[in-house]
Amino acid sequence: MTLLVTGSIGIDTVKTPFGVRNDCLGGSVVYFSMAAGFFTPVRFVGVVGDDCPFDLVEVFKGRDVDLAGLEIRKGSKTFRWAGTYHEDINERTTDNVELNVLAEVPPKIPAAFADSEYVFLANTHPGLQMELLGQLSEPKLVVADTMNLWIENENEALKELLGKIDGLVLNDSEAKMFTGEQNLLTAAKEIIKMGPKFVVVKKGEHGTLLATRKGECFVLPAYPTEEVKDPTGAGDSFAGGMMGYLAGKSAAVDDLESLKQSLAYGTAVASLVIEDFSLDRWQKAGKDEIEKRLGQLCNMMRF
Amino acid sequence: MTLLVTGSIGIDTVKTPFGVRNDCLGGSVVYFSMAAGFFTPVRFVGVVGDDCPFDLVEVFKGRDVDLAGLEIRKGSKTFRWAGTYHEDINERTTDNVELNVLAEVPPKIPAAFADSEYVFLANTHPGLQMELLGQLSEPKLVVADTMNLWIENENEALKELLGKIDGLVLNDSEAKMFTGEQNLLTAAKEIIKMGPKFVVVKKGEHGTLLATRKGECFVLPAYPTEEVKDPTGAGDSFAGGMMGYLAGKSAAVDDLESLKQSLAYGTAVASLVIEDFSLDRWQKAGKDEIEKRLGQLCNMMRF
Repeated sequence: MTLLVTGSIGIDTVKTPFGVRNDCLGGSVVYFSMAAGFFTPVRFVGVVGDDCPFDLVEVFKGRDVDLAGLEIRKGSKTFRWAGTYHEDINERTTDNVELNVLAEVPPKIPAAFADSEYVFLANTHPGLQMELLGQLSEPKLVVADTMNLWIENENEALKELLGKIDGLVLNDSEAKMFTGEQNLLTAAKEIIKMGPKFVVVKKGEHGTLLATRKGECFVLPAYPTEEVKDPTGAGDSFAGGMMGYLAGKSAAVDDLESLKQSLAYGTAVASLVIEDFSLDRWQKAGKDEIEKRLGQLCNMMRF
Repeated sequence: MTLLVTGSIGIDTVKTPFGVRNDCLGGSVVYFSMAAGFFTPVRFVGVVGDDCPFDLVEVFKGRDVDLAGLEIRKGSKTFRWAGTYHEDINERTTDNVELNVLAEVPPKIPAAFADSEYVFLANTHPGLQMELLGQLSEPKLVVADTMNLWIENENEALKELLGKIDGLVLNDSEAKMFTGEQNLLTAAKEIIKMGPKFVVVKKGEHGTLLATRKGECFVLPAYPTEEVKDPTGAGDSFAGGMMGYLAGKSAAVDDLESLKQSLAYGTAVASLVIEDFSLDRWQKAGKDEIEKRLGQLCNMMRF
């Protein structure tokens, strides 16, 4: 079924213990689409300035990603992000953020995309996520991401959004901050009370926790790897694998087995993208490698 | 097969967000034996002072735990520990430690225990662990626990011990400290280079990582639970479930499938003991409940 994603396109500068990459392609919609495109056709919605040095048509060449929702805005500047990962690569410092075009009016969802059934609203202001969602006629399964900034400063808007979506994806520290609960299962349950049918808590190197309104719970470790060069985009790639699988399978929102499987694919996809800078890993990896990685994960947690 | 454990017996004072328990029974050998006793007969080696208010014969009544290695030393005082768990119950502060009898000569391993085949050396000075190990004639599978204190101050003695044991169990922060590696898989591999055939890294609420000398890897999430009243003894209970299963099955040290299964049992056992203070949970729970918990864990991570 149709999968639409809205989110950021960025010019990233990334420092990790394994090197520095200046002005490389990044952004949630980019990482998401690359991952989801292995599973199902993707409808891409995002905006850059006319300074953007990347040819996204070229980047997604041969991938099943429809760029009709890509706007190149004249006179605007592209979003920029710079960050440094520490020796413990699970920790990072943001060095610089220039919102630029992201602080202007959002891109419009093309009319041809309005009938999208599966929707991922990558992290941005929850009011904007609501506005984008309002442009869709009858979405079947909507999942949103969020961050600490909106939890702290736009709590009401975020809670309003939670009443309109099926699933929320967020980090463990964000789930704790949002609810004031230290136990992640309790935190996830508290968020479910605010509206969504399920919550996925991302724990980075420690894996993922899923809780549903029906009281179901699912836990998954991360794929254990020593090959981590650049964790940027891991969360959006995870979401891409997850949503791509769900849309490809036309899964219902209460189909627990598909949700579980989708998180496993998300985990496999995320474990690959972090093995190289930016999107470099996808130059070599295809669906075969994702399936192989999933098999390895299965084997490493089977008893 | 025969399973021997050496470790501490303590008088614990525990504060958690769910209450305070003064002067309750604790100690590694106690938690371990209670857990392992569900799987196989246990040979218990530990020492208390004559001030010890607990009747361990009564505590282990009806359990398959041989207390021939329990010494009640006249004129000595029992080990005491006091700790406070924070609102985030995964964090704790040690309020007080009185080594008392643990700072004196160690208990002797009874001659009847010298032929023990499976051995768990709970956390204590690595030199003492070596001395206890030396009293055993031909152990088949020896696992030791350790802690940051010995990693920092008795590094050479610990490394010597690592050449004599089959497996090491330690916390994630300890594995990082020991090796200077931030990646846990890398850290585990570095420890394996020092001697043991396998390393089990305990990540608390995030589960467990196993790495073996053959390059095998296994990951397991913790059982997701909101019912955590007192995490004291979780690690020793985990080890008890693990070693109890291995000894009960007469597993070989390179039997990966049994090792995996043993960690799953350890996880199930640990998830139960933390649901109440001290050893209270075992007053109600038996092997049935452990099997049920294992089934729940399986179900929560199956996809």
